[in-house]
Amino acid sequence: MRRTLYTEEHEAFRKAFRAFIDHAAVPHVDAWELNGTVDRDFIRAAGENGFLGFEFGPEFGGLGIEDFRYNAVMTEEVVASGMAGDLFSMQNDIIVPYLRDLATEEQQQRWLPAFTRGECVTALGLTEPGAGSDLAAIKTSARRDGDHLVLNGQKTFITSGATCDLAIVLVRTGERDGRGTTFVAVENGTPGFERGRPMHKIGRKAQDTAELFFDDCRVPVSNIIGEPGRGFGCAIANLPRERLSIAVAAVASARHGLELGLDHARQRNAFGGPLAQLQSVRTQIAEMHTDIVVLQEYVDRCVLALNDGELTAAEAAGAKYKATELQWDVLDRVLQLFGGYGYMEEYPIARMWRDARIQRIYGGANEVMKDLVGRAVVG
Amino acid sequence: MRRTLYTEEHEAFRKAFRAFIDHAAVPHVDAWELNGTVDRDFIRAAGENGFLGFEFGPEFGGLGIEDFRYNAVMTEEVVASGMAGDLFSMQNDIIVPYLRDLATEEQQQRWLPAFTRGECVTALGLTEPGAGSDLAAIKTSARRDGDHLVLNGQKTFITSGATCDLAIVLVRTGERDGRGTTFVAVENGTPGFERGRPMHKIGRKAQDTAELFFDDCRVPVSNIIGEPGRGFGCAIANLPRERLSIAVAAVASARHGLELGLDHARQRNAFGGPLAQLQSVRTQIAEMHTDIVVLQEYVDRCVLALNDGELTAAEAAGAKYKATELQWDVLDRVLQLFGGYGYMEEYPIARMWRDARIQRIYGGANEVMKDLVGRAVVG
Amino acid sequence: MRRTLYTEEHEAFRKAFRAFIDHAAVPHVDAWELNGTVDRDFIRAAGENGFLGFEFGPEFGGLGIEDFRYNAVMTEEVVASGMAGDLFSMQNDIIVPYLRDLATEEQQQRWLPAFTRGECVTALGLTEPGAGSDLAAIKTSARRDGDHLVLNGQKTFITSGATCDLAIVLVRTGERDGRGTTFVAVENGTPGFERGRPMHKIGRKAQDTAELFFDDCRVPVSNIIGEPGRGFGCAIANLPRERLSIAVAAVASARHGLELGLDHARQRNAFGGPLAQLQSVRTQIAEMHTDIVVLQEYVDRCVLALNDGELTAAEAAGAKYKATELQWDVLDRVLQLFGGYGYMEEYPIARMWRDARIQRIYGGANEVMKDLVGRAVVG
Amino acid sequence: MRRTLYTEEHEAFRKAFRAFIDHAAVPHVDAWELNGTVDRDFIRAAGENGFLGFEFGPEFGGLGIEDFRYNAVMTEEVVASGMAGDLFSMQNDIIVPYLRDLATEEQQQRWLPAFTRGECVTALGLTEPGAGSDLAAIKTSARRDGDHLVLNGQKTFITSGATCDLAIVLVRTGERDGRGTTFVAVENGTPGFERGRPMHKIGRKAQDTAELFFDDCRVPVSNIIGEPGRGFGCAIANLPRERLSIAVAAVASARHGLELGLDHARQRNAFGGPLAQLQSVRTQIAEMHTDIVVLQEYVDRCVLALNDGELTAAEAAGAKYKATELQWDVLDRVLQLFGGYGYMEEYPIARMWRDARIQRIYGGANEVMKDLVGRAVVG
Repeated sequence: MRRTLYTEEHEAFRKAFRAFIDHAAVPHVDAWELNGTVDRDFIRAAGENGFLGFEFGPEFGGLGIEDFRYNAVMTEEVVASGMAGDLFSMQNDIIVPYLRDLATEEQQQRWLPAFTRGECVTALGLTEPGAGSDLAAIKTSARRDGDHLVLNGQKTFITSGATCDLAIVLVRTGERDGRGTTFVAVENGTPGFERGRPMHKIGRKAQDTAELFFDDCRVPVSNIIGEPGRGFGCAIANLPRERLSIAVAAVASARHGLELGLDHARQRNAFGGPLAQLQSVRTQIAEMHTDIVVLQEYVDRCVLALNDGELTAAEAAGAKYKATELQWDVLDRVLQLFGGYGYMEEYPIARMWRDARIQRIYGGANEVMKDLVGRAVVG
Repeated sequence: MRRTLYTEEHEAFRKAFRAFIDHAAVPHVDAWELNGTVDRDFIRAAGENGFLGFEFGPEFGGLGIEDFRYNAVMTEEVVASGMAGDLFSMQNDIIVPYLRDLATEEQQQRWLPAFTRGECVTALGLTEPGAGSDLAAIKTSARRDGDHLVLNGQKTFITSGATCDLAIVLVRTGERDGRGTTFVAVENGTPGFERGRPMHKIGRKAQDTAELFFDDCRVPVSNIIGEPGRGFGCAIANLPRERLSIAVAAVASARHGLELGLDHARQRNAFGGPLAQLQSVRTQIAEMHTDIVVLQEYVDRCVLALNDGELTAAEAAGAKYKATELQWDVLDRVLQLFGGYGYMEEYPIARMWRDARIQRIYGGANEVMKDLVGRAVVG
Repeated sequence: MRRTLYTEEHEAFRKAFRAFIDHAAVPHVDAWELNGTVDRDFIRAAGENGFLGFEFGPEFGGLGIEDFRYNAVMTEEVVASGMAGDLFSMQNDIIVPYLRDLATEEQQQRWLPAFTRGECVTALGLTEPGAGSDLAAIKTSARRDGDHLVLNGQKTFITSGATCDLAIVLVRTGERDGRGTTFVAVENGTPGFERGRPMHKIGRKAQDTAELFFDDCRVPVSNIIGEPGRGFGCAIANLPRERLSIAVAAVASARHGLELGLDHARQRNAFGGPLAQLQSVRTQIAEMHTDIVVLQEYVDRCVLALNDGELTAAEAAGAKYKATELQWDVLDRVLQLFGGYGYMEEYPIARMWRDARIQRIYGGANEVMKDLVGRAVVG
Repeated sequence: MRRTLYTEEHEAFRKAFRAFIDHAAVPHVDAWELNGTVDRDFIRAAGENGFLGFEFGPEFGGLGIEDFRYNAVMTEEVVASGMAGDLFSMQNDIIVPYLRDLATEEQQQRWLPAFTRGECVTALGLTEPGAGSDLAAIKTSARRDGDHLVLNGQKTFITSGATCDLAIVLVRTGERDGRGTTFVAVENGTPGFERGRPMHKIGRKAQDTAELFFDDCRVPVSNIIGEPGRGFGCAIANLPRERLSIAVAAVASARHGLELGLDHARQRNAFGGPLAQLQSVRTQIAEMHTDIVVLQEYVDRCVLALNDGELTAAEAAGAKYKATELQWDVLDRVLQLFGGYGYMEEYPIARMWRDARIQRIYGGANEVMKDLVGRAVVG
């Protein structure tokens, strides 16, 4: 059975995007890993080639294409290329809905052109040290003072946190009972806003992750994103798209990992023949392959449902946990198949493996995902 | 996301079929379990109502409808009703292709009208005591003697073996190297053909399973089904449909099992509240639910692929093992949720559970399925 | 490494006991399965040979031997013989502590001689329809009326419930806050005490399990076992011994199941050689073997700790759930190894498998065991 | 139940060793991770304090104590301290038997004093690029030339390979059919012997791992270790001790990981209370705890069996794979419990986790271990 998700347009786009990253990203990945972040030149080049913010209208430098299949194509190629950054998923999958749906026209005019040019790296500030997957517990506060909000507090585990130009952060404003959180955009350089140093992660080394600090940081009220007091609801509304983005990446990673494993198993000899001829290896390959094709089918349907505005929170949560568990299972098995080589960072499987571990945690820990699904089913 | 497999016609058919079994089967299931077989009256009634051999043309009493979705609808309702027999899957899913595609017109005129009237219960004789999932090792022999074949040997684990009117058996004829097996239809009453007593199975008690014995059993050559010497190939060609039938039943069983579990978990109180409110129970429900919706999507696509003649052997094997493993996992968890009640045959979950265990074995043991998939992937 | 649990005395005892059941039980097991209960003659013979209540003093017909290793030896041989009843574990492992530690001398004189002669089959009535593993929720009541208690209520899932001579039941007496439960012995024939019909279990068919009904059943206060109002505490105190008994049986069953599987795998040919030569089979055998020897070591230490009065509730709970999960895992894999034969009750593995399923449920469902261990560890 | 493995002497030794590493190692671990190797000063200090080669006789600077419980104590404290190097297990557990049992007196006089002083870091060269767990396939050759052997070939994944003073390598000498491998000691500085650069591992960063290259490297025949032509047999004979060493470390790591997880779960609040109060967390803690105490008991018995010379190859292989699988399972769950923090190398759990992954691979991949056990059981 062939995948039916993509049309010829998507495949043409895939080819163009893959050519771009093969040329502009892949040769630099080792350097980016050492530097802990992706090069700015690359981001600008991505913008120039139309790969950032293409959902925005042409007036902002975008293409006005709202079809998550393009996002999925990009994710699949990023994964397969080994470039392994979060840039595109962060900018296109996660941030775009905030700026497209919640930002005012004035705000869009201020930020979107730079965004599509690759000159506005954004970060989303939800998580806090005292509140991981439990968003309702955030404490970073914003007090109104004339035309400004005064922010105090701290965010953590923020993707692109050390390098972002614009941080969209969820703060406690307390306007109304149960509706006391608001999104506000903080530009780099604003006094009282400090971006922390990159954290030393086990993997994802070409992508910076950092804390954000707010110390009497004054932000104009014109930087409020979406309806004041409704921040939590907006975050919740955008989570299915974020989680589906993770699921798409996870299945793509599992698929690519299996391909690496297959190549190795066909070429590597042990105990008198290629690994792939050992019954235990063949069985493992069968299990991984079947799990992947089964889940791919489901995630593809979720992509179409998202396009149709019908993907539920529980479906996205289910896809997220299921896909990241599968990704992990596959990469861990394939690493084992590589033996000692799998533990060496010179081998792509080693990097994929260590990069993948965070997938089961971020975007909502998988245990939280299951709880969410369970509540929806039990009713 | 809604299932998209079925049209209104299928749903109307579902309603009719369900009404039929609710009336004609469900009240008798306990008696059938005791007797070890389904009542003949019921089978005739099923024929009268058009539920047997509907793929055959009207000239044979069928409807000429070749759409496996109707088979799937029937399987789902049989499972959900608790009637739990293999009658329909055996007759419609497994035997029909042999009679439709391989039988000569003369043979069709002889057998199909009785088949569609519910007066010809059929069995398929592949497995032998010395050859389980390893079909190539069969030994039952057929020696040509004039216009007859003389059969000697034994088959085992034959569904409907004790009650069948017609057994289609694979025998070794040895016409050509590597092509030495042939299908032959043996009618009940043929001298030298003996149907064994029903075996005492752990479950599936309303369905007889038995050995078949051939002792110098003379069968006219006009009873050969399909091309002589090509039996093995014909069996192989029909396996994807059989395996998909098992997969459809397995997912339906998992789905129904989860519904039983959900009802119980909502109603049963323990440790101060309904079971469903325990976090561990909710997590399990989430896992079962997600696994089911994911796999249902895949199996549904397999049904369409079968309709289009595109379902590969490896895809069917993957669906078979994956679905029966899921079925088992779900039913075993749900039984556990029922506590002691789950171990009592008065409770439907108990019967479903013991009935389900054979699914991982027959139609090709799951280990063999994985090997088959593995070989296809490794290449 | 050899097991070090047993001395020569234990091994001599094993030999004697095994000879006894090989002669007195094994030939009758099929009949007992059909009848749904063990024969009374056998129970008397077991008594005559000293296999019932040997912990009691010689004045009661016992041997005065308090060493749980003898109980373990009996359990192991019962399992290996295939006789598969709960008689000995029920009488010797579970009931003995109640009669030995809690019964008054007068009560002991009344009941123990018959017990050791095999003429007093006992049942323990804890579980109620509305309270499974949640003992604190029992509702069967006992109201004081002069020198009698008047019992009303119902027990369920009671081993030997349909055939017992004496039922020791936990009832709600409400003497004091939080101490409102009491054990009382009810003799068969007491007006108002009715033993239900045997329930139709999936397995354990040679052992009756039934409900007990109390309808204004008057029991003399001299039948109260242990301190009134302290029943719950007594039940709790005896649970580690019961759970260890289950664990011992579980590991023994896993061990015997693996032996059956090994024999089959060595003899059965498939795909060109014995099953045991398939790598996947060998791997499974390795996993089962290692799991068994590892857990046997631990359970053996628990037996010694019980002898020393040092086995904690959490340790017994851990051993119970771990051993029954292992038992299940092994028997389910071995059944699969047998293919279709494993589903036929003529094969010992089939009976062991269906008999084993209740082990994860009774004596405290495994989920409850884990919770108990978790609370002990978390503190 | 208390562990019974250790005596007071072992516990006193534990205290002394722990004080030593707390003072001499722990403060430097970050620096060693950066440098990719342990400091030489520390190794000398370890020697001065009697922690290297204590099994050797006093004439060589050792203590003449042959009791693997001391090795186990050291392993447990290294793991619990977070220093995480392989120094002690490499020197004391793996290399000592080669030098103690196979080296001639002349060789011992040459190397042991430096070894016990911490001035002779050793490496064991078994694995080659084309032969992972399959030792029989090694190709590095040694050709006799007068009083010398001339070595050509390459070893890989060699612990301490970049920094060793002495490498004991297995080479192909081909003296006799099936007995064609020999151990030979190559001193650093020998012409034609080159130590490769440290490989970039996912973890174990304070421990160098490298390739060894031999290019017409001339080694005097007086450096042959053990009987010529019998190298493979010697390697096999020493494997149980190496594998038990890994198992001891693995259980210790699981135990320490669980302690970290428990501390975190008790302190970290989420969803309205400490993590440890969530039922799902409690269940996981129960599972990890029970698995650990069960396996600890078994591994402890293996330690005693090794002391008694009775540990079989299959038992050691079983302990190795079982313990490293458990270690992995526990550390992966605990990391997940830590959420995003678990992915940050500032947290000990993160380092333990990435360090642990190689345990399932080296010392014989776990799949190979299972095969070995399976062959022993099947017979």
